[in-house]
Formats: sequence, C-alpha cells, structure tokens
Amino acid sequence: MATRGMLIVLSGPSGVGKGTVRKAMFQDQQRDFVYSISMTTRQPRPGEVNGVDYYFVSKEEFKQEIANDGMLEYAQYVDNFYGTPLKYVNQTLDSGKDVFLEIEVNGAMQVRKKCPDGVFIFLTPPDLSSLKQRIKGRGSEDMQTIDKRMLKAVDEIKMMQQYDYAVVNDTVANAVQRIENIIESEHLRVPRVISQYEKMIGVVEK
Amino acid sequence: MATRGMLIVLSGPSGVGKGTVRKAMFQDQQRDFVYSISMTTRQPRPGEVNGVDYYFVSKEEFKQEIANDGMLEYAQYVDNFYGTPLKYVNQTLDSGKDVFLEIEVNGAMQVRKKCPDGVFIFLTPPDLSSLKQRIKGRGSEDMQTIDKRMLKAVDEIKMMQQYDYAVVNDTVANAVQRIENIIESEHLRVPRVISQYEKMIGVVEK
Repeated sequence: MATRGMLIVLSGPSGVGKGTVRKAMFQDQQRDFVYSISMTTRQPRPGEVNGVDYYFVSKEEFKQEIANDGMLEYAQYVDNFYGTPLKYVNQTLDSGKDVFLEIEVNGAMQVRKKCPDGVFIFLTPPDLSSLKQRIKGRGSEDMQTIDKRMLKAVDEIKMMQQYDYAVVNDTVANAVQRIENIIESEHLRVPRVISQYEKMIGVVEK
Repeated sequence: MATRGMLIVLSGPSGVGKGTVRKAMFQDQQRDFVYSISMTTRQPRPGEVNGVDYYFVSKEEFKQEIANDGMLEYAQYVDNFYGTPLKYVNQTLDSGKDVFLEIEVNGAMQVRKKCPDGVFIFLTPPDLSSLKQRIKGRGSEDMQTIDKRMLKAVDEIKMMQQYDYAVVNDTVANAVQRIENIIESEHLRVPRVISQYEKMIGVVEK
C-alpha cells in the first residue's frame, strides 16, 4: 500500500489573494500534488467551468452531501454554500498523492480538527509585516481609525496562531516559492518518513 | 532588541558525510547563518587551521570550560574531547543571527535538551532509503551478516526519531539544497514569527 499523501491547506484572511496564489501554483506547472476543487451552490461566473473552477451543484445536492457526512468542511456565505467534498480528498490521499486545498479560514479550522497532521499555511497581507506603520498610519489619522486597524491586525494574528506557517503575499511569485519550499521540507519531517523506514524493516523481520 | 536567531543542528551517523555537506554549504556562499566552530583537544591535521576548522585547545583548557558550564555539548572520543563552546553560540543567537552546528549524534541530543526549539536535521546514508535491499543484500549473505545490518539499520532509525527532519545524502548538492529549504521554511513557522507580530502590536498598545 502507498504511503498516504499529505494534506496541504492554504488559507488566510479574505482578500489576501489566496485564489491568485493557488492559480499561479498550478499554472504551467506539473505538480506532485493535486488541487481539490471546491463545491458550491452559487451560479458560475462568466468563464468559470464546472469541474475546473468549482463543482456547481444545487442547494439540495449540497445539503444531501452534508447530511451524508460527505463534506470535509463547508460554510454558508450570504445565501450560498461552499465546501470541500471528502470523497475525492480521501481517495487521492489514499493513493499516495498530496492534496492541496485553498479555503476560507473557517473551513481551514474545520479541516484542522479532522486532519491535525495536515500542513496549514496562512497567507498574510504584506502590510501585516509592517503592522506598526500601518496602524499608526501617517500620523494624521484619528483614534477611531487607529482602533479599527488595531482590531483587524489583532484578529489576523489570532487566526495565524492556528496555522503551521505564515507566508507573506508580497508578490505572487515569492509566495508560490515559499509554499513550494514548505511542501518540500514537510516531506522531510521525521514523523512523515519514519513509518516508511519502519515498514521496510518490518518486511524483513517476519 | 533583535529577534533571537535560530539554532540549526546537522547530525547523523558516523561516516554519513556531515562534514562534507557542511563545508559545501559554506563554500563560495554568503549565508544568513553562522557556522559554530567546534573545540577539540586533538592535534590539528595537516592543513587544518585553528579558528577555522576547530579551536584547538589543551585538555586542561577544555576541562576548565566544562567545569565553568561553558560547553553547549561535548563528548570524549578515545582520548580526546570535542565540543561546542556555549558563549559564541549564545552571542550570535542573541544578535539575531542563526547558528549552524555540525555535530555527532550524542552531542545533538545534549543540545536538544538545552534548546528544544532548535531545528534538528538528521543526515541519512542514501542506502537507508533502500533498507530492505541493503539488509537482504544479494541473497548470498549468511544470517550473521543480515543480523548485523539489521541492528545497524534499527539503530539509525532509532536515532532519527529524535530529529525534526531526515535528509538523504544521495549527493552533496541535493543534501545542501534540502537543508537550505528546511532553513527557509522553518523561518516561516508560526511559532517563530508570531512574537514579532505581537511585539509590533505591543509597541502601539502602550
């Protein structure tokens, strides 16, 4: 049996550019890992293709999947459902391939509970690395503006704490490079490789 | 105050090529991390330079350092002492720079106890990844030879369990590349970066 694949979760605050980074990762690149396409009940936008951008399903179909415990994670935004079908993820992992998810922070926390040994990457806005400047602004802001920025920064940092890695999205190419590095290194982590070595010995011990 | 640097420990079984890999890492390369030179009581070999290859000291000086709690780790092989002076490591880490150690497995375990948040890399022989073949050999070996190989393999795997990463030394260039990746990725780990973000906020909160 193949060694089970690794689950890689890319997430981060809304508007940080998760989708752009994820698309860049799979564009013109043969990857060792497979992108797990999300399922949604919203209407396709012009140019979006079923089975490529999303699996577009009806609300009834989505609710049926939830009822069948068929979703690894899901959420409702406004009037629509978004989520990750469990079956495809498990089949791919079982076949020994890594699976790459790009999902919202709430979904990522659901996955964390179910798959604690996944690799959780938090994409941060570039200005999170210069928080102080951003919060203080140009010195001309009123206290209310500063408080608002402060709260947003604290929220983002609190979210980050639940993840394994923080990747700054300063440029898409840099972010992609960092994520590639993380995936390669994670494959060298002892808890991920030791069972292969032990298995090899097990084979000879019998 | 600068964020404290990261301690990187390269170790592995005797004869695996730690020294060769370490030298390749620092050859013709400007690194963000600093190599911590070991201290030894053995005589310099032809071509070895004090303060470059080792700090060559007398047994009395070495024992004095041990007595002063001045060694991060040390060991005695045959009639000589080998070890890492603590002062230089601490000064460098405090200045915000990473420190790179290349040491024997016993020393690495001493460092693990004192610096649990270091990055511990176990260099494995390439044939550890084809254990089964190696142990069985060509089918012409007697049981004693197979048992011996088996014991050695088990020992190596047991050592590996104490480390964070396992890097196969198939070629020096590959091993160096993997170690570089690990170091870059470790710098993105949330427990290592979160305090910087929190500090930035702390500055504005006062």
